[in-house]
Amino acid sequence: MSTNFRTIWTTPERDIEVIDQRQLPHEFVVVKLKTYKDADLAIRSMTVRGAPLIGATAAYGVFLAVRELIEKGHEGAFLDEAFSTLRASRPTAVNLFWALDRMQAALDEADDFLEAAWNEANLIVEQDIETCRLIGVHGLPLIEAIAAQKNGAPVNILTHCNAGMLGCIEWGTITSPIYQAVQKGIEVHVWVDETRPRNQGANLTAYELTKHGVKHTLVVDNTGGHLMQHGMVDLVIVGTDRTTRQGDVANKIGTYLKALAAKDNNIPFYVALPSTTLDMEINDGLREIPIEERDENEVKYVIGKSKAGKIEPVLICPETTPAANYGFDVTPARLVSGLITERGICEASEKGILSLFPEFK
Amino acid sequence: MSTNFRTIWTTPERDIEVIDQRQLPHEFVVVKLKTYKDADLAIRSMTVRGAPLIGATAAYGVFLAVRELIEKGHEGAFLDEAFSTLRASRPTAVNLFWALDRMQAALDEADDFLEAAWNEANLIVEQDIETCRLIGVHGLPLIEAIAAQKNGAPVNILTHCNAGMLGCIEWGTITSPIYQAVQKGIEVHVWVDETRPRNQGANLTAYELTKHGVKHTLVVDNTGGHLMQHGMVDLVIVGTDRTTRQGDVANKIGTYLKALAAKDNNIPFYVALPSTTLDMEINDGLREIPIEERDENEVKYVIGKSKAGKIEPVLICPETTPAANYGFDVTPARLVSGLITERGICEASEKGILSLFPEFK
Repeated sequence: MSTNFRTIWTTPERDIEVIDQRQLPHEFVVVKLKTYKDADLAIRSMTVRGAPLIGATAAYGVFLAVRELIEKGHEGAFLDEAFSTLRASRPTAVNLFWALDRMQAALDEADDFLEAAWNEANLIVEQDIETCRLIGVHGLPLIEAIAAQKNGAPVNILTHCNAGMLGCIEWGTITSPIYQAVQKGIEVHVWVDETRPRNQGANLTAYELTKHGVKHTLVVDNTGGHLMQHGMVDLVIVGTDRTTRQGDVANKIGTYLKALAAKDNNIPFYVALPSTTLDMEINDGLREIPIEERDENEVKYVIGKSKAGKIEPVLICPETTPAANYGFDVTPARLVSGLITERGICEASEKGILSLFPEFK
Repeated sequence: MSTNFRTIWTTPERDIEVIDQRQLPHEFVVVKLKTYKDADLAIRSMTVRGAPLIGATAAYGVFLAVRELIEKGHEGAFLDEAFSTLRASRPTAVNLFWALDRMQAALDEADDFLEAAWNEANLIVEQDIETCRLIGVHGLPLIEAIAAQKNGAPVNILTHCNAGMLGCIEWGTITSPIYQAVQKGIEVHVWVDETRPRNQGANLTAYELTKHGVKHTLVVDNTGGHLMQHGMVDLVIVGTDRTTRQGDVANKIGTYLKALAAKDNNIPFYVALPSTTLDMEINDGLREIPIEERDENEVKYVIGKSKAGKIEPVLICPETTPAANYGFDVTPARLVSGLITERGICEASEKGILSLFPEFK
């Protein structure tokens, strides 16, 4: 990896620091988290975002809560409140619940609460890095196979939103095979969906691809179908916030539309995920995954850098026009060519998932 | 119609005035066109946009060129240059070529060039208004049929871009059935796609629906699939810039994605068009319709109203990130439920089109 930063790290004083991703790509601002409420706010406000990074931030949030409990002599109820607050910070990404459950289990067995929380949160982070690296190892052959047929022409990959290192700790999920392909000298070009309303593609994916020296072109979310119709996309890879037992995939709103276009044009559509985003408790993603509805102002205003160099919102519709802001949609398994996980690639189905993760039987 | 303006009109001095649609919805600015180059620039800069309005503006552009030729004693070549300049102002909307051909034919037969050009341009405008009204008459029963099944619940219509009165002269194409339904007391609610990169949905469709008192909700372009999956859309109606003999439809980039989602969810997907957007010379829209590529800055910057009340662009990606800006995509006829024309509704096929327009045989 050619960048020298992670998305979340600890200080010698055991505070937590994260990048304020709302300021990217224009400014690189670091935010310090000293209390669990700081961590909760960082998740809610989307200072941090991306399923694995949300999980890691929540895990450190629990560590911070334990520290506050000890330092300030709070009652045990304080920790329960911290858990339930963090659990309610975002509704769709299942990693959040997974990370909190892991922290709870670690505390349940601990003698030294503080050290147990510290170690478990650090372990979650290190494991995420290794998981993402392995997703790249398993996804790389997909890109190599396409490259082998293109006689040196770049492999065109379309992605939606940011499932890059900025959504994780390092490597990212969908970017891990891309970074590993580029490291091996394969020519890759990425079509970056802007990803309205919050523009994580334009703000974050374009930013990290720039930092890693990966060729890319920004397009509006409307463009992918046209590109696919004209043979300009070889492969679609997206991330996911929650994947069901039958292989349905909840991801950033608009993913479903790209999956339909990929199907209509016989283009492989892969989803990269750490197994921590599997939710084996549910089957039908369309009926069972709660879809977050966010503030209408994220739709009515677009945030960017003005000519004066200020990061500010501009209104794009009549002031009185109401807006709806659904954060995610569900792509049915029938549209997914395969799931790229840390243990390999499998079919988007219960059978496929269990072939790699038999412990979920 | 409850507004008291058209999108293009003439002054007593026979200048032409249009609304600067780039300032909407924030400001209502009128631009005067005194020369054909003014008209050409108005089209190129998207001061005016929408296939019928582009045609009307080009027609008046020819009138202005004839007047300049007479007043300034230019050579006949001046008029040829005006025609070819206007013809090259936008590449995709076929109405432009249709209007220019009509103006040419009127001049070819004329004794008094100036009066002939003036009358023909005015006629094009009046005919467009009547055409749009008739599209509404024929489209209205679709909405009435859905309303009859909904027991007073609103009919939810999704549209993309602006094929409203602002893209025409009055009524609009897709809005004509909607306005006529509302006039009849039918509850209609419109999902307005933002329509990046230029946000004609957020800027223009939301504006004119507000002006006409039609209930609507703005959504980002990514949202339509999710809404359709969840039964929140009863009908999709979009406009078109060019429709081929076999019924393929070129419309604003992103239309194809909505058509795929409508098909996947068994939702009717109709295209409203004046027959002037039929291009019976070509069949395969995907291969034969030239797709305009516009300035990358339309993607990299979003224009809106800042807190200080200034209409200005904000940068949404790294400065060095390149962007691609395809203006249109093609929706294959197989995804279109029907074409709503001034003569009725037909299948999106050669047979369907010829059943209403036998003169194209």
